[in-house]
Amino acid sequence: MRAAVMREGRIVADEVPDPVAGPGQVLVRTIACGICGSDLHALRHADRMAEMAGELSDLAGVPSGIPAFDPARDVVMGHEFSAEVLELGPDAHGVEPGDMVVSMPVVLDDRGLHTVGYSNEYPGGYGERMALAAGLCLPVPEGLDPRHAALTEPMAVGVHAVRQSGIKPGEPAAVIGAGPVGLAVVSALRRAGAEPIVAADFSSARRRLAREMGAHEAVDPREEPVVAAAERLRRPPLHLYEAVGVPGVIDDAMRDAPRGARITVVGVCMEPDRIRPMRGIAKELTIGFSLGYDPGEFASTFDAIASGEVDVAPLVTGEVGIDGVAGAFEALGDPEAHAKILVEPTRA
Amino acid sequence: MRAAVMREGRIVADEVPDPVAGPGQVLVRTIACGICGSDLHALRHADRMAEMAGELSDLAGVPSGIPAFDPARDVVMGHEFSAEVLELGPDAHGVEPGDMVVSMPVVLDDRGLHTVGYSNEYPGGYGERMALAAGLCLPVPEGLDPRHAALTEPMAVGVHAVRQSGIKPGEPAAVIGAGPVGLAVVSALRRAGAEPIVAADFSSARRRLAREMGAHEAVDPREEPVVAAAERLRRPPLHLYEAVGVPGVIDDAMRDAPRGARITVVGVCMEPDRIRPMRGIAKELTIGFSLGYDPGEFASTFDAIASGEVDVAPLVTGEVGIDGVAGAFEALGDPEAHAKILVEPTRA
Repeated sequence: MRAAVMREGRIVADEVPDPVAGPGQVLVRTIACGICGSDLHALRHADRMAEMAGELSDLAGVPSGIPAFDPARDVVMGHEFSAEVLELGPDAHGVEPGDMVVSMPVVLDDRGLHTVGYSNEYPGGYGERMALAAGLCLPVPEGLDPRHAALTEPMAVGVHAVRQSGIKPGEPAAVIGAGPVGLAVVSALRRAGAEPIVAADFSSARRRLAREMGAHEAVDPREEPVVAAAERLRRPPLHLYEAVGVPGVIDDAMRDAPRGARITVVGVCMEPDRIRPMRGIAKELTIGFSLGYDPGEFASTFDAIASGEVDVAPLVTGEVGIDGVAGAFEALGDPEAHAKILVEPTRA
Repeated sequence: MRAAVMREGRIVADEVPDPVAGPGQVLVRTIACGICGSDLHALRHADRMAEMAGELSDLAGVPSGIPAFDPARDVVMGHEFSAEVLELGPDAHGVEPGDMVVSMPVVLDDRGLHTVGYSNEYPGGYGERMALAAGLCLPVPEGLDPRHAALTEPMAVGVHAVRQSGIKPGEPAAVIGAGPVGLAVVSALRRAGAEPIVAADFSSARRRLAREMGAHEAVDPREEPVVAAAERLRRPPLHLYEAVGVPGVIDDAMRDAPRGARITVVGVCMEPDRIRPMRGIAKELTIGFSLGYDPGEFASTFDAIASGEVDVAPLVTGEVGIDGVAGAFEALGDPEAHAKILVEPTRA
């Protein structure tokens, strides 16, 4: 099949071996797959990701949150997808050929647990076909554009972070960064009843998106710090969400956070970072790191999108084929132009 | 009066103005005052402490956890004390001259809130006399050595950190560092029913003290990591307590912590620190920073010492007069020799 392949630190369009549906798996045709910031990180920091996976796998019995793959071998990334079922592998049940589905990007086989899209064995949604776990497939109902269903995965990341933070209805929230992760957090905060929700981003396009996704206000942090904006609207927010993932942002959040605040770190920072612990101690801050989602959160996010409660359409700012993936990785560097670009590997 | 004074980055014995008991205050004679690691920090990093206090005071309406004082002027430190009441100021009630008391090191006057011992106005327990808030004084009962009562303050720090961490009876705990803060945490964990409690320290003397204060096991981290030791005894601990306060320890704890663990930072690190956020994200760690205690925790700690439930005698490894404070600051650099040194400014 054709795929956009991560090879030697670059994205190249090439032919790769077709996946095969093993026991309990289904072979699917990829409909759409979002490009995730983590994929950009992985391309840049593949070695560090592999090193971290190695460190974590040393902890006996502790499942690693970091997918393990060999960056020296081909990887077909893409873990935010929707797909059409083509055929069922042995002992696969619950779906039929022709069904449109979404799935968590996880498969279990006799070699262990794999992340679809961060694996040398299981190609992700930047390729024409994937092998998925039949038991994890959720059918896309009539009336829901399957391309939009592909956004279930990134939106679930926001749902998980908000649930983990423990924020309650009526409490103010500050979201630092309005890229796809921050926007997912904003959407989840709105559903959780947080108020006011203030988002901060340097980009006016992303501030506009933040308002569309549910932020009561979106500020340029060069003009007004997000904590000050929440305080102006109601009171200092005890919940901050760090959705940027570059060094220095956690320490800045610790500087700006009011006493007793919780900073939920949902932006993935691959690099070492510098903090001033004294800031945390003086104000008794809590820093909670958040990763992924559980199957229940994934399913409830999907339901919210399917029912129309959450409209993800504004997030889609571009669509490309396999040949366009490398260029899309570049284009995502411009926050004014893009939030989520969908790869459609099999479109005409 | 005579006092050990922090002046130009050094501790000198000198005469300073006598404190005066203002409204609601009592004048006391210091019986004993523990030397706290924070005082060693303050001597070395007075400018940084002042800078941090300034940063925090910019947050309107947010009480700073960091005492504000001018390091260019004299400070008589010492905030872990017991004392004998000498005379009552205007409108002071509840105690009588001759009473032995302990108190939280806080006074409120018409200029605001002051920390006794970190103030240019309110000398602490390294001087012969102090002015304290009458309403915060707790009487030392017959049978309790008032020198031991002075350890209420540092022990309360452990009680607060353990309560804040949310650990439950029967859950394992790992305590990194068995200096006075770590030992206070160990004692509080024992009272909270944590099990097993494993402490780690390079010093064999401190490991011995950790066992005396309630640790089920104390390890040399060069021989066995504290998390591994807890796992060997029962299972990986979901509660780690960072009681060292030097750069790098938080990141090491993040490396060693199992998935889902909470790291309670109770060691005060004044310097910038380096962490790898990826470690926190991959394992969904929580870092909770802990500072001080509340009046209820202070009082319950005092009750536990007064009733004999907690025996603090092993912690006292030295006693000095005012002339000995500078030397004691040096001596505390040797963990084999010392845990807590008491200053007794008025002893014969």
